[in-house]
Amino acid sequence: MKKNSFTPEKGTVTTPQGFQAAGISVGLKRANKDMALIYSNRPAVVAGMFTTNLVPAHCVVYNKERVKNGHARALIVNSGNANCCNGEQGRLDNFEMAELTAAKLGLSPNEVLVLSTGVIGEPMNMEKIRAGIDMAAAALSNDGGLDAAQAIMTTDTVPKHFSAEFELDGHRCAIGVIAKGSGMINPHLATMFCIFTTDVAIQPALLQSAFQEAVEESLNRLTVDGEMSTNDSALIFANGAAGNREISKKNDDYHHFVDALRALAVEATKAIARDGEGATKLVTVTVNGAANESEAVTAAKAIANSMLVKTAIFGKDPNWGRVVQAAGASGAQINPAAFAVEFAGVKVAENGGRQPFDREKIIEMLEQKDVQVTIDLGVGHASATVFTCDLTFEYITINAEYHT
Amino acid sequence: MKKNSFTPEKGTVTTPQGFQAAGISVGLKRANKDMALIYSNRPAVVAGMFTTNLVPAHCVVYNKERVKNGHARALIVNSGNANCCNGEQGRLDNFEMAELTAAKLGLSPNEVLVLSTGVIGEPMNMEKIRAGIDMAAAALSNDGGLDAAQAIMTTDTVPKHFSAEFELDGHRCAIGVIAKGSGMINPHLATMFCIFTTDVAIQPALLQSAFQEAVEESLNRLTVDGEMSTNDSALIFANGAAGNREISKKNDDYHHFVDALRALAVEATKAIARDGEGATKLVTVTVNGAANESEAVTAAKAIANSMLVKTAIFGKDPNWGRVVQAAGASGAQINPAAFAVEFAGVKVAENGGRQPFDREKIIEMLEQKDVQVTIDLGVGHASATVFTCDLTFEYITINAEYHT
Repeated sequence: MKKNSFTPEKGTVTTPQGFQAAGISVGLKRANKDMALIYSNRPAVVAGMFTTNLVPAHCVVYNKERVKNGHARALIVNSGNANCCNGEQGRLDNFEMAELTAAKLGLSPNEVLVLSTGVIGEPMNMEKIRAGIDMAAAALSNDGGLDAAQAIMTTDTVPKHFSAEFELDGHRCAIGVIAKGSGMINPHLATMFCIFTTDVAIQPALLQSAFQEAVEESLNRLTVDGEMSTNDSALIFANGAAGNREISKKNDDYHHFVDALRALAVEATKAIARDGEGATKLVTVTVNGAANESEAVTAAKAIANSMLVKTAIFGKDPNWGRVVQAAGASGAQINPAAFAVEFAGVKVAENGGRQPFDREKIIEMLEQKDVQVTIDLGVGHASATVFTCDLTFEYITINAEYHT
Repeated sequence: MKKNSFTPEKGTVTTPQGFQAAGISVGLKRANKDMALIYSNRPAVVAGMFTTNLVPAHCVVYNKERVKNGHARALIVNSGNANCCNGEQGRLDNFEMAELTAAKLGLSPNEVLVLSTGVIGEPMNMEKIRAGIDMAAAALSNDGGLDAAQAIMTTDTVPKHFSAEFELDGHRCAIGVIAKGSGMINPHLATMFCIFTTDVAIQPALLQSAFQEAVEESLNRLTVDGEMSTNDSALIFANGAAGNREISKKNDDYHHFVDALRALAVEATKAIARDGEGATKLVTVTVNGAANESEAVTAAKAIANSMLVKTAIFGKDPNWGRVVQAAGASGAQINPAAFAVEFAGVKVAENGGRQPFDREKIIEMLEQKDVQVTIDLGVGHASATVFTCDLTFEYITINAEYHT
């Protein structure tokens, strides 16, 4: 099967069989839904990838331990408080969330994962959280995925959810994902939350391996503002409800599953970048002609994180000098006499210098919602693509006014 | 002598004896002065530090070669065109600038350095540059330093110039500096241009060594937007006009000179940060309790480059969680149970968690033009300080509208 040939649909985490979800409002935030619950009605295996921030939130520390078991059936989420830097009380509050959710669902606390996002260093309002767990458990439904997608949003402007369907040995399988951004997002595990469910049957170790493969070229290639949150988490639950032969080695079924997962992860990645704080555009940065893949990624991330490149795109200015400057400063090898740059599909520099171009045409292209920036470093044959957004007045407004 | 005990004065590069300067307008930019010339009326030694960007401007490549000789007497600057990525013609244009200046001053081209700043990848308007060299040479004067400081400005809003005076073996000595920012500024050789003159007599190798020592804890600890220009350069000319015993080893005179140079370089660094593109505040980030100095610098630069920290300060919000997040993501060791944070002189977090604080007082402190952010990582005993500015709407305006 061709890589990334899936056409993602607008399903959610309740698209795969055997999953229920809920998203409710308990008043942790002024308006909007603020707690979500996702539940598999049968045993499920789980895999996760987490922030490498050295000050991880309590939920991250807890989930990392749980995911090692390879089994979990439920996830409770609050989007009002990060529960980070809250000391022993924070650890206890996080555990209580798992415990209460488990009690409601008749599970062991070990089978429940927890995610929290919001302000750092504020005590949890456990009274509301407890009420929210009750409400969420009562609201679980077979089509609650969209509510859950809405309930995990913080400064996101749109809920992000996708699904893909495919066959494994004659069985119809599905993957669903809900995701949230939209600031404090950086290349290492680049989303606050990205939660996948699938009804595929797969062994825990292979689920973890498949997940890492899929995330490497998607969520790990996303940057909004170069920041890495204390809470970034990507999780996947697989409950085997599709009835396929359990994937127990890296066979064709495994690769087919990875391809579907990657396609969906790329879609979620683009959706998060497009809805980055204040963003008006999805910016796709592709580096070609790098010495090796690692240098291609380094250069692409440097360009994608460049405040000057991001403001130039917002200003609809084909300022290719800033692209070259960012690549040149990244540490990746670049040939000053051989690089080439394309801005929004138009060649603007070649052989290390400017190339006459139609300014009106390029400004018209920069009006689009999707902008492609491509640089060939003129050194080798490796490539990489990174997803980001432009930098706008609205980013400043959001982050100067998002008060503690 | 105590480190940094100098009180910098508002002198310029013509404060030291034997230096002349000029700043003139030849129409490379719509308004304002756009070419500067600095000249020592006697032989001088020179040292320099340059951008590590792998796509250096033609002037950087040229100056690096010249500085190796250790001798130069003049510097010609244009602030209208970066002359970067201009291929062989760019190299020739750069050399012609040196050649014409040398001819005007009766020097060898080897004795003339060149600096250019502005847009990347645009051909030079050599007709105007040639006229500008004539005008600048004719305008050289003993008090032309301020004109030169004005002529090197790009998006800077104020000219930056300082001087310090001191004695070496009974001889009155001086150092003067002019500097420009104010965007595309990052920790490695963090200014576009910072040009020092001194009448101290010192051997070339020791001048280079003294310069590196002084720059390490000043210009190399400056960041406005995490970007590293293709043109960043710091230069120092020393002509011995003060008549002191030539400094030929690392004796007391040498250390005295380094202290004065460092104090002045710190002052220039602060001035550049304070006048960063769109900045309303100078932000001084100090990291204490780090495992070693290198990790202290890493954490301080991560905090200083954090768009979330910079917007929080602009928004007058003591959002210490963002400071911890940036430090935690930097790779420097941090003890999540022991870190402490001070925002604008007020303790806001201790023992890894929040500390009750007077919000009104801190908001009042954040109204000031100078804001100090301090974090103790709770690991070891090393410290470092980095200088930056806040991130504002005006940064976006400047960089979305500074068209190619």
